[in-house]
Formats: sequence, C-alpha cells, structure tokens
Amino acid sequence: MSVKLDGNIFVTGTNRGIGLELVKQLAEKTGQQCHIYACCREPEGTGAEALRQLVTQYPGKITIIKLDASDEDSISAAVKTVSERIGDAGLNLLINNAAINKPPQHATLADTGKKDMMDVYETNVTGPFLLAKMFLPLLQKAAEKGSSEGDKMSCKRSAIINISTIFSSMEKCPESFAFAPVYSYRTSKAALNMLTRCQAEDFKSRNILVTAIHPGWVLTDLGGDQVRGWR
Amino acid sequence: MSVKLDGNIFVTGTNRGIGLELVKQLAEKTGQQCHIYACCREPEGTGAEALRQLVTQYPGKITIIKLDASDEDSISAAVKTVSERIGDAGLNLLINNAAINKPPQHATLADTGKKDMMDVYETNVTGPFLLAKMFLPLLQKAAEKGSSEGDKMSCKRSAIINISTIFSSMEKCPESFAFAPVYSYRTSKAALNMLTRCQAEDFKSRNILVTAIHPGWVLTDLGGDQVRGWR
Repeated sequence: MSVKLDGNIFVTGTNRGIGLELVKQLAEKTGQQCHIYACCREPEGTGAEALRQLVTQYPGKITIIKLDASDEDSISAAVKTVSERIGDAGLNLLINNAAINKPPQHATLADTGKKDMMDVYETNVTGPFLLAKMFLPLLQKAAEKGSSEGDKMSCKRSAIINISTIFSSMEKCPESFAFAPVYSYRTSKAALNMLTRCQAEDFKSRNILVTAIHPGWVLTDLGGDQVRGWR
Repeated sequence: MSVKLDGNIFVTGTNRGIGLELVKQLAEKTGQQCHIYACCREPEGTGAEALRQLVTQYPGKITIIKLDASDEDSISAAVKTVSERIGDAGLNLLINNAAINKPPQHATLADTGKKDMMDVYETNVTGPFLLAKMFLPLLQKAAEKGSSEGDKMSCKRSAIINISTIFSSMEKCPESFAFAPVYSYRTSKAALNMLTRCQAEDFKSRNILVTAIHPGWVLTDLGGDQVRGWR
C-alpha cells in the first residue's frame, strides 16, 4: 500500500486491533506533511502502550487524542482540540473505526439484553454520526481546497470511512448467523451502513467522499481467534 | 384481503395510523376464534378513542394492552398479561408496528441530535427485539401446534412481522434522501431489517416465520401529508 497523503487524518479506536495497525501503516506510508490524530479511550492506560510506542517511533507524526465514542462531551472535546490544531488546513480523512460488541463474541439471543443493544448502537452508530456532524466544517474546508486530481472525490481531498463488517450484510447473514448471532453488533453495523449511505448523499455536493468498508476478518481482541478462517 | 386466522394476534402501536387500520381489518376479516391484543401507550387517553371504538364495535374480539415499546418494564408487563390470557394456545402472530421518528418528519442532519438517534433506536429496534425474545415461548407453542397446512411456515401458524419502510432500503436511499433525510429513522429501520434477518435465521428451525414488510406510503400522522405520491 502506498498512500501519498499529506493532510490531516483522524482515526478512532486506535489503541489496538485494526485501528492500531491503521495508524502504524499510515505513519509508515504517508507523506511527511501527514498528521495522524489517533484516538483511544485511555491514552495513559496500559492498553495504549503500543500506540504510545508508535508516537515515539514516528516523531511529530502522531498525536494521541482522548476519545470515548459513546460520550458526546468526549467527542465535542476531541473535535475542539483537533480543530484548534488543524485550523484552516481542514480534515482530509475521518476513519470511524472504534466499535464494541456486547456481550463479547458469539452472543446468542438469550445472552443479549436491552442494555447491550443500546450500548453497542451508542458507540458504533451515534459515535460516527456525531463525529461526522461535528467535523463537517473541517471536512468541508479540506474538500474546498481540492487536490492535484481536481474535482475527484477521494481521501486525498476529504473523506469519511466508516469501518463496517461482513456481519452487517443482510444477504450474507444466513452464512454466519449460527456461528455468531451477535444481534447487537449486526443491527448496529447495518445501521452504520445506512448512516454511510445517508452521509454519502448528504455530503456529495460538498465533494466529501463517504464510504463503508469491510476490512476482512482480522485476528484482534474484538474479532477473537475462534473466527480464524472466516472471510 | 381474506385472512382466515383463528389464533392470537399481538399488534403494537395501534391507536392510530397503520396499526389502527391493521386492527380494524383483522377484526373485520379474521375468523370468530381470532383474538387481537392491540397495544398503545395510553389506552385511556384521547388518542386511543378510535381504538376503543373498535373494541365496542367487535365485542370480545379485541383487548387493548398498555405498552410503551421504549420501556422494558412495560414490555414485560404486557407480555405477562397476554401470556396469562393466552396460556397454552400460544401466540400466532406478533406484528411489531409501533415506531417513532425524531425529530418529526423530514429532519436534516442539523436537526438531529444524539438523543434523537438513541430514542428512535430504542423504540423501533429494541422494542421489537425484546417483544420477540419475551414472546418466543408463546410463539413456539403456536408453531408446535402446526396447522392445516402441515409444516408450512405462515402467520396461520406462528409468525413475526416487523413493519419496515422503503426508507430502510440501502439501494433506494439516494431516491428519497434529499426529500426526507431522517437519519435517526433510516438507521433504525435498517437495523430493524437486520434484526428481522437474525430472527428469521434464529427461529426457522422452530417453524416460526419472520419477515419485514414495507407497507407503502400511507397518509398517517407519522408519515405526514407531504410525502403524498411517494412510493
């Protein structure tokens, strides 16, 4: 992967798993002027040690931002901090990667209660919803600057990527349901896909690209090791 | 429409709109042994007058049940009341029709806050989720009794119908988005579709049919009159 980005990137859920790897690869492979705002709930905690190591490894390239995607005040504070740093440069790429699954892994209907449904929706859907809404002025600033590719929408200009999952697919639900019912996770990710569709429509006239991606199964704490081989 | 049902039917959100019309047509067109449990938030309120009139018009056929789909205790109480009434007969049909839209009608991104997103998901998704979960033993009882059509799954035997909307369609989002952004409603209904898929997989081995339907646009308080002509 060679990403010649030189703008500002904001990634959520970066202390482990896919988010941590995203920050690592972005730090390695982007241009010198690229700056990564890497979010996690506890920047000082032991769980963020690997992320702090990346900051040391790539001096001046990564700033860790405290963010709990389930907490509107936390989102406001993070957006304010980053906005002050970025200013007129704008935000080129917002990656909504932070997500939870409750109860953890393979939960059945019997395992799942209302609080699980609500908590997972709060982090996985309202978090990305609020981040896009609050960052919209900065995303628009970046979009207005255009790029070397002219009018083409891309993450080199201004984009939102919502990290989805194959478990959000209506069509593919039967293939994996028995193995991993995860009602709370599947419903939240289907809603995230719809959020993505809405944002794509809403923001296209401002030249902001919005898309959702399924990263494939990855051996992470959230994904667990029991789904090894799942595609 | 001729529905020869003789079992127990539970319908939510029946004091107005599509729910009220469903109860009316079910009362008119079903068999003598059919009983309809018609839910609304305030059975004694002025908003339920039309529903109370149906009870009078079809003596012994309809029972009004107090239910707030956003309130787990209310759902538990309603399920308990109906379970005691139904007993071994089982529940033949659960229609999750109750739904809200916040802010009302045509809300844009700017109009929509976190509480709107959460409230709409709570009523439109966790309500149907909990009702199906709590009614599962009664639905299974009805399914086990079979029907004159043998093993065929149908609402004559045991079924859940989740009332969805064309606004839940990922594919059709671009056609109607500018007209009615309604982020909170669209994301909740996409999640409801996924819930339906999960339930269909989960319950198929018990011969319980689960499906979602888009009833078409209807001139209701929720739908409003500005979408007249929308298909």
